[in-house]
Amino acid sequence: MQIITLTTDFGSSDPFSGILKGIIYHIYPEAKIVDITHDISPQNINKANFVLRSTYRYFPKKTIHVCVVDPGVGSKRRPILIETSNYFFIGPDNGVFSTIIESENIKTVIELTNRQFWLVDVSQTFHGRDIFAPVSAHLAKGKQVKEFGKVIEKESLVTLPVKLLIKNKDCVKGCIQFIDHFGNIITNIPNDLPTKHLKGKILGHQFTGLVSSFSEAKDCMLTAIRGSSGYIEIFINKGSAAKNINAKVDDEVEIVLQDTMA
Amino acid sequence: MQIITLTTDFGSSDPFSGILKGIIYHIYPEAKIVDITHDISPQNINKANFVLRSTYRYFPKKTIHVCVVDPGVGSKRRPILIETSNYFFIGPDNGVFSTIIESENIKTVIELTNRQFWLVDVSQTFHGRDIFAPVSAHLAKGKQVKEFGKVIEKESLVTLPVKLLIKNKDCVKGCIQFIDHFGNIITNIPNDLPTKHLKGKILGHQFTGLVSSFSEAKDCMLTAIRGSSGYIEIFINKGSAAKNINAKVDDEVEIVLQDTMA
Amino acid sequence: MQIITLTTDFGSSDPFSGILKGIIYHIYPEAKIVDITHDISPQNINKANFVLRSTYRYFPKKTIHVCVVDPGVGSKRRPILIETSNYFFIGPDNGVFSTIIESENIKTVIELTNRQFWLVDVSQTFHGRDIFAPVSAHLAKGKQVKEFGKVIEKESLVTLPVKLLIKNKDCVKGCIQFIDHFGNIITNIPNDLPTKHLKGKILGHQFTGLVSSFSEAKDCMLTAIRGSSGYIEIFINKGSAAKNINAKVDDEVEIVLQDTMA
Repeated sequence: MQIITLTTDFGSSDPFSGILKGIIYHIYPEAKIVDITHDISPQNINKANFVLRSTYRYFPKKTIHVCVVDPGVGSKRRPILIETSNYFFIGPDNGVFSTIIESENIKTVIELTNRQFWLVDVSQTFHGRDIFAPVSAHLAKGKQVKEFGKVIEKESLVTLPVKLLIKNKDCVKGCIQFIDHFGNIITNIPNDLPTKHLKGKILGHQFTGLVSSFSEAKDCMLTAIRGSSGYIEIFINKGSAAKNINAKVDDEVEIVLQDTMA
Repeated sequence: MQIITLTTDFGSSDPFSGILKGIIYHIYPEAKIVDITHDISPQNINKANFVLRSTYRYFPKKTIHVCVVDPGVGSKRRPILIETSNYFFIGPDNGVFSTIIESENIKTVIELTNRQFWLVDVSQTFHGRDIFAPVSAHLAKGKQVKEFGKVIEKESLVTLPVKLLIKNKDCVKGCIQFIDHFGNIITNIPNDLPTKHLKGKILGHQFTGLVSSFSEAKDCMLTAIRGSSGYIEIFINKGSAAKNINAKVDDEVEIVLQDTMA
Repeated sequence: MQIITLTTDFGSSDPFSGILKGIIYHIYPEAKIVDITHDISPQNINKANFVLRSTYRYFPKKTIHVCVVDPGVGSKRRPILIETSNYFFIGPDNGVFSTIIESENIKTVIELTNRQFWLVDVSQTFHGRDIFAPVSAHLAKGKQVKEFGKVIEKESLVTLPVKLLIKNKDCVKGCIQFIDHFGNIITNIPNDLPTKHLKGKILGHQFTGLVSSFSEAKDCMLTAIRGSSGYIEIFINKGSAAKNINAKVDDEVEIVLQDTMA
């Protein structure tokens, strides 16, 4: 039994995600397909990267993670397969695997060139169907990584620009990396700040923290907490912090530590 | 083979539901995970209770139903496991299991306290990931209910306030308990009204019934029918009743029976 | 192992799709249920037909495709089971299977009349639950097609009206058959136009083509491409063509071939 996860921007009402599943089961009926999401905002490589980095490591070893957020489909961007110590990643070389490239122990990177494992008619607009889905199914079925194409250098892969993150002794400047469905603002400032109390500013609004649960925050007040994804989150209890202050990804966040611990 | 269902307010575009699935498969790869929905409106305990009550009994015996609609996460609300004659329910003790508590034959209720079955690092903001998902997987894998914590009294569990429902001989007063995706209004008035014809009022609008299929109703007319979930529904054929009269959950509904049968 | 796919207009937040899954697993726990989509716009038979036609053939042979977009539920429209050379289709006889009826090699058509395979209490508003789901599960489990009801004529089945499509030597007139999640406009004009270059008009706007990938198009320009579903698509690179020109299904499209090839 081999798990194949799908992360795409196909939306939930079109035929595209169903087509991927059909192809995978056709080639490898024993596959266990898991939808991570098909609701990445269209062509949002940043968001795809965040969702992948947040989920992949919870899956069993050898899971195959397929990501199809692919604005450059049909252009010269390469279709790739990355093998790390624990997982496989399949998708376009456009930055969706940035965090995996930076943080995982990469064993092999393949540019998918072997058409033997593609659908017979390859379109220029839907490589999810024509390349990524069949390759993932053949890999799940037991084909070796190197059969799918030619080995390329890890250093040649596309990664997203590094986000603003400046740490001083008492002060950290970062930015918003994700806004979740509840309107919680997930910064790129790691949870391991050496302080129990902090003050901060975002888009001209002040917030305080750290609380230890959402319900500990005062009503309607922007508050900071060590978030479940490993980064400081700014939230409003039972409300949407992001809507309240009209926050967007990449907006700056500044934090002042109040009682820096050795 | 053991089915684990998921009912959450995580939305469809965030990493959260994918994380739950990863954890469950990690612990118990043979699990069969079924998404009931991840689109409960954020923190809407009432809606979660309705969706659960409407679905759980259609599943095979021994199915494990996990519900994570959990505004009080990290506060003193208890994480629980309920074993009934036929099913298991895992989630927060905040009312999402109200109907199950009231109508099922409950064998055991456990407060989840045994950290051995949790993720190693437990956050204060995501017990779905840290407690409920791993507990469901270990239960599916064969652990005994009582291993997960201490037995608590059924009577101590949180339930939602009972909704308005007054039955007289010829007249019933109730309220809206759910509005579905089509805009059909599901009341809390049971289908078993002893009449073939009725008149009613909702938000100042009149309706008649009972028809025996949607298409039997006159165009654009608010009409009542015995609904598929066991309660009187008010609908507009090929339209949205709820949008039309701007109905919301808990709005009052009054019905007058026209030909009461013995 | 038998795959059952689901295509419905139930939406993602109501209990309905979960109920279908529960029933199927109850009857046939080994089923592999695949969600094609539950987000067909309410009662949109045309869209259901398009999504089905686009997906069904990618699945393994013997897959059972269930479609519940069923505005006439409870009226005289027939519940049917279609067996083709390769697949099974279950749903209402209202046009959702139009393309299958026209293009597949049909072996048998059954009107579902045998109540032995239905839920005991059949509502007049939810045949997905009461008829289609249990029939699909019993079929997956091995029951023979003819056990489910009486054989009816293929010619008696409901199909959607044929869409405008006029082909002249240098000019083709068609219409929009689908608008996808990205705002790409999928016409009903087949890809096999004997030309490399074309000009066209839609809702008073001009477009050119054919390009061979999305990224080859000039920014902000309406452009035509041979689409992945077999039909000419009109798109705007990294934008929504449909929003831009306010296009709707059935709007007319006119194409003039520029260099007709023998």
